[in-house]
Amino acid sequence: MDIAALLTSAGINIAVCVVLFSFYSVLRKQPSNVNVYFGRRLASQHSRRIDLCLERFVPSPSWILKAWETSEDEILAIGGLDAVVFVRILVFSIRVFSIAAVICTILVLPVNYHGMDRMYKNIPLESLEVFTIENVKEGSKWLWAHCLALYIITLSACALLYFEYKSITNLRLLHIIGSPPNPSHFTILVRSIPWSSEESYCETVKKFFSYYHASTYLSHQMVYKSGKVQKLKDDAEHMCKVIRDASMERTCKPSFMQCCCSGAPTISFKKISTEMGSTHGRTCNTDLHLDTGKKECSSAFVFFKSRYAALTAAQVLQTSNPMLWVTDVAPEPHDVYWSNICIPYRQLWIRRIATLAASVAFMLVFLIPVTFVQGLTQLEKLQKMFPFLTGILKEKFVNQVVTGYLPSVILVLFLCAVPPVMILFSAVEGSISRSARKKSACFKVLYFTIWNVFFVNVFTGSVISQLSVFSSVTDLPAQLAKAVPAQATFFTTYILSSGWASLAVEVMQIFPLLRNLFQRFILRLKEDALDGSLSFPYHTEVPRILLFGFLGFTCAILAPLMLPFLLVYFFIAYLVYRNQIINVYITKYDSGGQFWPIVHNTTVFSLLFSQLIALGVFGLKRSSVASGFTIPLLIGTLLFHQYCRQRFLPVFRSNSAQILIDLDRRDGHSGRMEEIYEHLRSAYNQSSLMPHTTSQPECVSLHEDKDSGPSSSEDMETGNENEISQKDRPRPIQRTLSMSSDKSVLGVKQ
Amino acid sequence: MDIAALLTSAGINIAVCVVLFSFYSVLRKQPSNVNVYFGRRLASQHSRRIDLCLERFVPSPSWILKAWETSEDEILAIGGLDAVVFVRILVFSIRVFSIAAVICTILVLPVNYHGMDRMYKNIPLESLEVFTIENVKEGSKWLWAHCLALYIITLSACALLYFEYKSITNLRLLHIIGSPPNPSHFTILVRSIPWSSEESYCETVKKFFSYYHASTYLSHQMVYKSGKVQKLKDDAEHMCKVIRDASMERTCKPSFMQCCCSGAPTISFKKISTEMGSTHGRTCNTDLHLDTGKKECSSAFVFFKSRYAALTAAQVLQTSNPMLWVTDVAPEPHDVYWSNICIPYRQLWIRRIATLAASVAFMLVFLIPVTFVQGLTQLEKLQKMFPFLTGILKEKFVNQVVTGYLPSVILVLFLCAVPPVMILFSAVEGSISRSARKKSACFKVLYFTIWNVFFVNVFTGSVISQLSVFSSVTDLPAQLAKAVPAQATFFTTYILSSGWASLAVEVMQIFPLLRNLFQRFILRLKEDALDGSLSFPYHTEVPRILLFGFLGFTCAILAPLMLPFLLVYFFIAYLVYRNQIINVYITKYDSGGQFWPIVHNTTVFSLLFSQLIALGVFGLKRSSVASGFTIPLLIGTLLFHQYCRQRFLPVFRSNSAQILIDLDRRDGHSGRMEEIYEHLRSAYNQSSLMPHTTSQPECVSLHEDKDSGPSSSEDMETGNENEISQKDRPRPIQRTLSMSSDKSVLGVKQ
Repeated sequence: MDIAALLTSAGINIAVCVVLFSFYSVLRKQPSNVNVYFGRRLASQHSRRIDLCLERFVPSPSWILKAWETSEDEILAIGGLDAVVFVRILVFSIRVFSIAAVICTILVLPVNYHGMDRMYKNIPLESLEVFTIENVKEGSKWLWAHCLALYIITLSACALLYFEYKSITNLRLLHIIGSPPNPSHFTILVRSIPWSSEESYCETVKKFFSYYHASTYLSHQMVYKSGKVQKLKDDAEHMCKVIRDASMERTCKPSFMQCCCSGAPTISFKKISTEMGSTHGRTCNTDLHLDTGKKECSSAFVFFKSRYAALTAAQVLQTSNPMLWVTDVAPEPHDVYWSNICIPYRQLWIRRIATLAASVAFMLVFLIPVTFVQGLTQLEKLQKMFPFLTGILKEKFVNQVVTGYLPSVILVLFLCAVPPVMILFSAVEGSISRSARKKSACFKVLYFTIWNVFFVNVFTGSVISQLSVFSSVTDLPAQLAKAVPAQATFFTTYILSSGWASLAVEVMQIFPLLRNLFQRFILRLKEDALDGSLSFPYHTEVPRILLFGFLGFTCAILAPLMLPFLLVYFFIAYLVYRNQIINVYITKYDSGGQFWPIVHNTTVFSLLFSQLIALGVFGLKRSSVASGFTIPLLIGTLLFHQYCRQRFLPVFRSNSAQILIDLDRRDGHSGRMEEIYEHLRSAYNQSSLMPHTTSQPECVSLHEDKDSGPSSSEDMETGNENEISQKDRPRPIQRTLSMSSDKSVLGVKQ
Repeated sequence: MDIAALLTSAGINIAVCVVLFSFYSVLRKQPSNVNVYFGRRLASQHSRRIDLCLERFVPSPSWILKAWETSEDEILAIGGLDAVVFVRILVFSIRVFSIAAVICTILVLPVNYHGMDRMYKNIPLESLEVFTIENVKEGSKWLWAHCLALYIITLSACALLYFEYKSITNLRLLHIIGSPPNPSHFTILVRSIPWSSEESYCETVKKFFSYYHASTYLSHQMVYKSGKVQKLKDDAEHMCKVIRDASMERTCKPSFMQCCCSGAPTISFKKISTEMGSTHGRTCNTDLHLDTGKKECSSAFVFFKSRYAALTAAQVLQTSNPMLWVTDVAPEPHDVYWSNICIPYRQLWIRRIATLAASVAFMLVFLIPVTFVQGLTQLEKLQKMFPFLTGILKEKFVNQVVTGYLPSVILVLFLCAVPPVMILFSAVEGSISRSARKKSACFKVLYFTIWNVFFVNVFTGSVISQLSVFSSVTDLPAQLAKAVPAQATFFTTYILSSGWASLAVEVMQIFPLLRNLFQRFILRLKEDALDGSLSFPYHTEVPRILLFGFLGFTCAILAPLMLPFLLVYFFIAYLVYRNQIINVYITKYDSGGQFWPIVHNTTVFSLLFSQLIALGVFGLKRSSVASGFTIPLLIGTLLFHQYCRQRFLPVFRSNSAQILIDLDRRDGHSGRMEEIYEHLRSAYNQSSLMPHTTSQPECVSLHEDKDSGPSSSEDMETGNENEISQKDRPRPIQRTLSMSSDKSVLGVKQ
């Protein structure tokens, strides 16, 4: 592939991007697409009227300006800490690759280009290999330039990483301190409650915690098997009106310490509907249904009187059998993944192992399309397979498209299937919260993409493809050193096609757009029924950004020609994702910056890996000085990683006692504790938080007094999950305080 | 090597063992050796008169009977839980290898012997290879016998492991519940206290804990830099008499919540001697020395009012900077490794990494003697190196000795140097307790021995020695399958020489015996000055037992002739170690069975490894059925391991809330809490617990009212460490309650 082919590829991509971006700037102004492109604003403003300018059919760059101008505080207010962390990843990438691009263009590129005595052609006709380190002759004295560049890139990356980690840690702490009282801080999730034939789970929980945590235990709430709840709820809906008319629930005061477990049998639906649906008067009913125990899971949310007590109870081993009374810090109410909470704890370890095995199997099966894609970059193979194509493939333009563009497109299409599969695996794995599921899926997608895009491409598509993969461990650096520069061209086109085009697709929101058109013009649904609520797909976007960072670091000194394209990618990504955060995605739950450790670790891994490859290359080029200088860099990077693990990671794993105690004091002094306790009762209301696929608006509105409208929602985020409805989610201003419907409880200004 | 050579080797070893054991049974009856062979009894009975029979010079097997008859409860009372766990390792090994020996003798051995059509010689002249799996021809239908044996061994090992883990977990829980109040349960160790120029560490600690843990904080005790303490103590000793005469300390009542940090300057030694040395009246002094802060470390023991509070405070992240206020569960008073507590916390991670690097380097440097040893087993090499030896080496007996015995002896001698080096590494690493240091050294020695004895021997001494070691990962099982059976002979002789002989050396206590003779007859020290206090060297003995287990599992179906020798080894070890626990070693501190998880993990690793080798062997022998059946066994073993990790390991990592709260309640109801608080004050008395290399008896006796005598002790355990003196250690009956000198505090019957 020569420069011309690369430029062809770049040209196609730029054209596609410009067309799509223009198209987007028109489409977003169409009122019918408001719920596709302004889902978040729609949700927060409760109005379908967005100020649209009159020039509806003229492309305009106004969205770019808006995305550029929005400050980080606004992003924090709109998208939560996770969104800020995501933007920070992009900022970090832009910074570090700017430095890398400057250094490599000044230092490395000339050395590579003039590395060998040969006939110089016109630049456009030069093969791309001429610009890689392959062009430097063995024993060259100029390899110190590469080594120096590696040093500068590593040191600047480490410095930037350190300051980012520090500032994100601070943001996380501020987020915990600054946000309104969070029910999850007072709550622990208890699983694997021991079964006894004499008493229900509910009684067991009450007995255990009021004995062992007498001074701090407040109350608890059982988790019910979701299928049953749904069925009972449906039953209950028949009686909704009766209950509302009687309105007997409002008259009696709730006694909070009481548990919902008495004896006398009564009519099933009455009990269940009052207990689950209404926020008031639940514990007033003394006539309860006998077989409540049957519907209970062996899991419960237990509420404590202070944050510190909840934290300690969550972290301590409760009994001498670690498989019973398993406690965890509870997720935020809207973050709870209800269907997984009922999974028996004993199954979890098997599920985890099974998921791991399935993920590995999936990664290996995926080799088939990747191998096919690699075949395309080597046209001779393709011509052998399909002899009738020989004529077409000899055309220069077709040749350039097929080698420069098609392989990446095919790969990208196949990769589209990965995130839904991985999030399915993470759900099966048994994550108790949606954010944990996304984080786990993020890991899986990350390993998957780095393995399948990088390693498999490197090892199947390179000179050593005839040798057995990974046959030897000790000369892995040397093998990589041979293979990676040879594949640099492919990675450059991959950035062009997968990177740039994926941003255009992201901003266009093609699938929601098509769904919207389908619903609006074929199903002819009403405005209200159209739901654009999507939460940010961190599990697909974070790995993608990290993959490009990985490619950037590994190829920086080997094939510096890639860096400008990468930098453009990150810059567009910065604008596009900010736009999406501001306009499209709604924040249903916040993991509190839990993605940053993943980013940090992956970046350090990328750095180490690039150093390892550089070591191999320097070895191949017989430059012992450069190899010698790379080794201390490797050790230094490892030490840096270890230091950061020590210094910052624990803050992301658990809240600190100091902060929680300070918060407890503050609330205690201001006398808000009672309000918070009151609010806790309704915070983890399973029936209002769970997705109702068959919900009926009349009854839901009974239970949720303030926010009218149906709570049914179809979450398109992953294609197979049901997320909580937009109506239930907290207002952006009070991101962390996941209030259900009781606005008055904590007296927070809206 | 043939059967005759093996029997020669066995004969030499049996002779050596019989001689040494007889010699031992005589030596132990000599009054002059009492402190070598009855160190523990001497320490517990406080009398040098052991009942000795008259036949002082006649060998007798009475010690064997005594060792055999002692029950587990007695072992528990004498040696603590760690000793019981150690005996259990032996019992487990005897059980599992009895099963293996029976199965392999019945099933595997005949199959191996008749595996190939060939000339049968007389059994004594048969090469040992005839009894290994190498003798089974390719594609043999009899390999199912090996596969079945592997199944039986694995299943019985897993079942036994499970029940052992369960019973040791129960023992550990009983140990915690049943033992008298343990000061370490109420105490946490705080390190990395932030430095402030305005106040001393002591004030900072007081401020922090009385603010954030107001309801549970009891008091604290700073740790002082040991060098300085010593110096100040020496100063203070001049004033001892003055203080005693004035006896003003006794008159004022201690106010416990007060901290030892006021302002007005006074005479240095007075303050320090009263504060550190005496158990009473420490906080009465209001006139304190200004520069106390200079001698303080940034570490302190903080006492809490309940066990649960201490546990939670130890486990929770204290502040948002994880490098400050680092809390850990405090070790038992006698388990504290004082000199490491003062290490700045920021250094620890670097120390850990440096130690790891040093250990790995040590392992690699050790290849040199191992390679030399392997040269000896192949006589041709030796004859090439030393041509003048050719004549001697052709003698049959010399040949047998050199190939069968000498290599192991050399290896054993080199291995003697390993434990002291590893315990030095573990000390440098920064363990805060002696038991943690021993556990860490145990890991290191274990990795070291398995690597150096097994892998290096296998890979340097076998057919594939010409190939590069570990050149290929994927055919590792096949390589092992080739190499391990070939080395089985060496391992058999290794068991004979290293195993059997090491037991004889162990029972003889050669080094302490020589030291005793030296001190008694050359230095002419008095009876009282001779100190036989040794604590059990778990870090050398546990890895040794585990190594033999590892060899047993890996070679069981490959070379079943090894098993009888191994079984004899375990049986003698059972008797010898019980004898040593009963008579020789004193229990200074107890890790509460922390060694069992190491044993469990190593055994599972051995099982997996043996399955992997079997897989390779079955592959080489082209028995697809046997290979196919081995894979589910491998997966099953992994699942078993994961289950045990889930089920039992957390109990060894941390105490459970339930137990601690129950204990708190019990003590609260019985009104013993005040006594316990009183006792806590003196429990972590640095000056009385630390080894005083230059201590002066007069002053020590002032501070330690009851137990007279000097507290200087020289610990020979590792050659370079100073352990606490026998006088300070708790009585065996109240193993866990590490009382310092105040016997009356908890009213425990002695």
